Amino acid sequence: MLLLNLNTSSNTPLYKQVIDQIKQLIDSELLKPGDKLPSTRVLAKQHNLNRNTICKAYEELWALGYIESSSGSYSKVRKRIINVFTEPNNKDHTYNWENIISKSSNILRKSVQKEIVRINSANKIDFRPLSPDPEILPSIEFRKCLNEILRSGKSEILLYGEAEGFYPLRTFLARHMQLHAINANINDIIITNGAQNALDMIFKLLIDPGDTIIIEKPTYSEAIPIFKYYNANIIELPVYDEGVNLNELEQVLQKHNPKFLYTMPNFQNPTGTTTNQAHRERLLSICEKYNLPIIEDGFVEEMKYFGKNILPIKSMDKKGLVFYIGTFSKVLFPGIRIGWIASNEYCTKRFSEIRKVTEISMNTINQAALELFCRNGSYEKQLKKIHTIYKKRMGVALKTLRENLYTNDFKYTKPIGGYTIWFESKDSKITENQLVKLIQQDGVLITPGSQSFYSNTNSTCFRISIAHRNEEEIETGINIVTQVLNSLNN
Amino acid sequence: MLLLNLNTSSNTPLYKQVIDQIKQLIDSELLKPGDKLPSTRVLAKQHNLNRNTICKAYEELWALGYIESSSGSYSKVRKRIINVFTEPNNKDHTYNWENIISKSSNILRKSVQKEIVRINSANKIDFRPLSPDPEILPSIEFRKCLNEILRSGKSEILLYGEAEGFYPLRTFLARHMQLHAINANINDIIITNGAQNALDMIFKLLIDPGDTIIIEKPTYSEAIPIFKYYNANIIELPVYDEGVNLNELEQVLQKHNPKFLYTMPNFQNPTGTTTNQAHRERLLSICEKYNLPIIEDGFVEEMKYFGKNILPIKSMDKKGLVFYIGTFSKVLFPGIRIGWIASNEYCTKRFSEIRKVTEISMNTINQAALELFCRNGSYEKQLKKIHTIYKKRMGVALKTLRENLYTNDFKYTKPIGGYTIWFESKDSKITENQLVKLIQQDGVLITPGSQSFYSNTNSTCFRISIAHRNEEEIETGINIVTQVLNSLNN
Repeated sequence: MLLLNLNTSSNTPLYKQVIDQIKQLIDSELLKPGDKLPSTRVLAKQHNLNRNTICKAYEELWALGYIESSSGSYSKVRKRIINVFTEPNNKDHTYNWENIISKSSNILRKSVQKEIVRINSANKIDFRPLSPDPEILPSIEFRKCLNEILRSGKSEILLYGEAEGFYPLRTFLARHMQLHAINANINDIIITNGAQNALDMIFKLLIDPGDTIIIEKPTYSEAIPIFKYYNANIIELPVYDEGVNLNELEQVLQKHNPKFLYTMPNFQNPTGTTTNQAHRERLLSICEKYNLPIIEDGFVEEMKYFGKNILPIKSMDKKGLVFYIGTFSKVLFPGIRIGWIASNEYCTKRFSEIRKVTEISMNTINQAALELFCRNGSYEKQLKKIHTIYKKRMGVALKTLRENLYTNDFKYTKPIGGYTIWFESKDSKITENQLVKLIQQDGVLITPGSQSFYSNTNSTCFRISIAHRNEEEIETGINIVTQVLNSLNN
Repeated sequence: MLLLNLNTSSNTPLYKQVIDQIKQLIDSELLKPGDKLPSTRVLAKQHNLNRNTICKAYEELWALGYIESSSGSYSKVRKRIINVFTEPNNKDHTYNWENIISKSSNILRKSVQKEIVRINSANKIDFRPLSPDPEILPSIEFRKCLNEILRSGKSEILLYGEAEGFYPLRTFLARHMQLHAINANINDIIITNGAQNALDMIFKLLIDPGDTIIIEKPTYSEAIPIFKYYNANIIELPVYDEGVNLNELEQVLQKHNPKFLYTMPNFQNPTGTTTNQAHRERLLSICEKYNLPIIEDGFVEEMKYFGKNILPIKSMDKKGLVFYIGTFSKVLFPGIRIGWIASNEYCTKRFSEIRKVTEISMNTINQAALELFCRNGSYEKQLKKIHTIYKKRMGVALKTLRENLYTNDFKYTKPIGGYTIWFESKDSKITENQLVKLIQQDGVLITPGSQSFYSNTNSTCFRISIAHRNEEEIETGINIVTQVLNSLNN
């Protein structure tokens, strides 16, 4: 019989007392591995406690690795009890990993030495996240799709899938690309673990260490570690209001022989800039002239709110030079980790070889559920829903800026879609760090612009993302930002 | 009004006639993009057809990209109609990708030139698949877990996760490792997209092109493309009944300075060989002496059927030299693509940096569902279930072999766990190709042994996996194999 010494007048809750005393009995080996514990019913009765109290304690003991339980039988003391939550021991230091790891891992290690400081975002208006608002995610519809998929009883979705991705989803995406005037068929499409993985696969396919690539300045911040990891030689083209300067591009191509150009023609991250049809056509014709592949990152293709439609570069791509990257992360939810590359049959085959090496195949369950979600119209519905919501939000953001920002010191972009607005001062008296802190003190969190630069910049910049904020918060938050910026000018 | 000319006495099914005629109307632009189609009800009535016929036709037209439909409103002709299933066009050939792709992609391309011939496995006993039998997968329990996770309404599982993987699942795995006497804490664990991805991450972490590694001969066939992709210099150690020869290992280490040794101590794939405790201890001590990291692939750690427990090498690893690879693919189901590496805190950090580059984070929904599946005891239950089933199956396989194989020409291994049995003839009169064909003619599919060799072998070998076959099929199938092998000797 297990006798515990419980104190009902203690500040420590009873279930916690039960945990502590059983832990002590096990640690001191009075209870040995394999020993049975009394049932929750019996122990509760013996100590005149509510059975739930004992259940809660047993559950916690299980979670701590002290006991094992299986339904319908007694809980037992576990064979081996080392607290999982022990402090890291020093065994790592017996081996000098730093001298062993690969060059690329070492580059990566050094480039992330600066740990990002986590800021407590409670009671702050957080303009940093660039994923859809958790409040409007279609989790119920997606759950229904997952259910239907798993109920269908097709075992294929539980086994290894095809390296190129789930065939019906590739079919959907080929058709989806066609709605954007892209002439893609199934053999041109490979599914990826989100857009990041798409970019990584393209680097794997095309880049040897030391190869040159052209990127935009500023660019997608999460792509910068990829550039470094693959040891690419980087040429940066500044992003102006109308996109990169195509004469500059041509000058670069006269001197260099890069592997590709990486560009975001829609609502560029971070600047929010969108290039027009003429720019896209000329960009493509220059790249065709120099045989330069284009990586077109269409991460929020659908989120255009104002003005007429502009076709993706890929839609005009007759030579098959363009790799179009798409993702469900920014319109559905990023947790699903599904994106795609639309390129050509030759490269899709190479991608599938790389996929086999790196993970054999992707998770099929999610791909199948997503395909159903798309097929039954939920995707289009969700797209319409968030389009309506974000169009209003972007409208409020731009209106608030127009009406309240008096300073000429800071310029901001006026995006016709997407989630981000970019602020830049060419000759600011204030450093980025100081500015971010000032705005933070007043209750608003913004993304420092320097995160989006591969090389340094002389400007002071920052990014606002309206993705996680409602209209009221956007108005309040942007008001605060404009007040800080206006005050700098005085 | 849409009038179709349907022929009820035609061999073409009515729904197919509806499809063809509407397609024709769209292709010839008599129906233009945006045009509404009649409702299924109306069209059925007009033509005196069953409404299901029209529904089926509309569905197919939607799938072919001809029409778009949204629930509760009319179907319309799609804006852009290019058949997704068009033959691949020739645009790929305008650009010479072969001269552009990276060295590693090119190596991969050349190494997979030989396309694997797909054999129709209908009416055959297929001894090739090495994943759990689809008949015994716990899809209902897993569905319940997915449901509960998505019902919980925690938006965190829909957003980006942590690069190291879902924290509670890492907690479970640390504890799980402890049950195998491995002193791992959470900081030692990173979740991976299956064991293949674990291996790939280790190569990324440790291997520069030209680095030397030691592997077993034969080895895991899917690892061979990884060796090639990372351009590693390979030293092979033959696998004998008791594992690799440790004197040979020491001789290699006196001459070379490899980055690591890759080994499968349990039920080695393909040979089924298991090393004993003494072998493991000496292996580790040699590696410690030469500071050689060990990649211990524990892909079916739990599936030991006969004899006493043997501890993983990692459990004796005081210097933190061992990378233990685990996976849910071979005991739960591979479609979930979840495995893990238990190493040390330093390397886990490096892995997480690599994860951020390659895909930011993994899918959290599956990890959360799997964690619940483990926490509520379903994993242990499933483990027990399949352990019982496969113990019997392996018993039947070995008994059938013992009682029926008379030839001395072929030796086979007697695995104490796992799914595979390995057959080898040192001087066979028959080539592998001929043997595989002979056995196939009699209705049994086996895996050619050469797939598991990095370099060539003089032996004729093949692998049998009992993973997908029930006891009856195993008995019948192995009887056929033994008859073929016995007949060779005559």
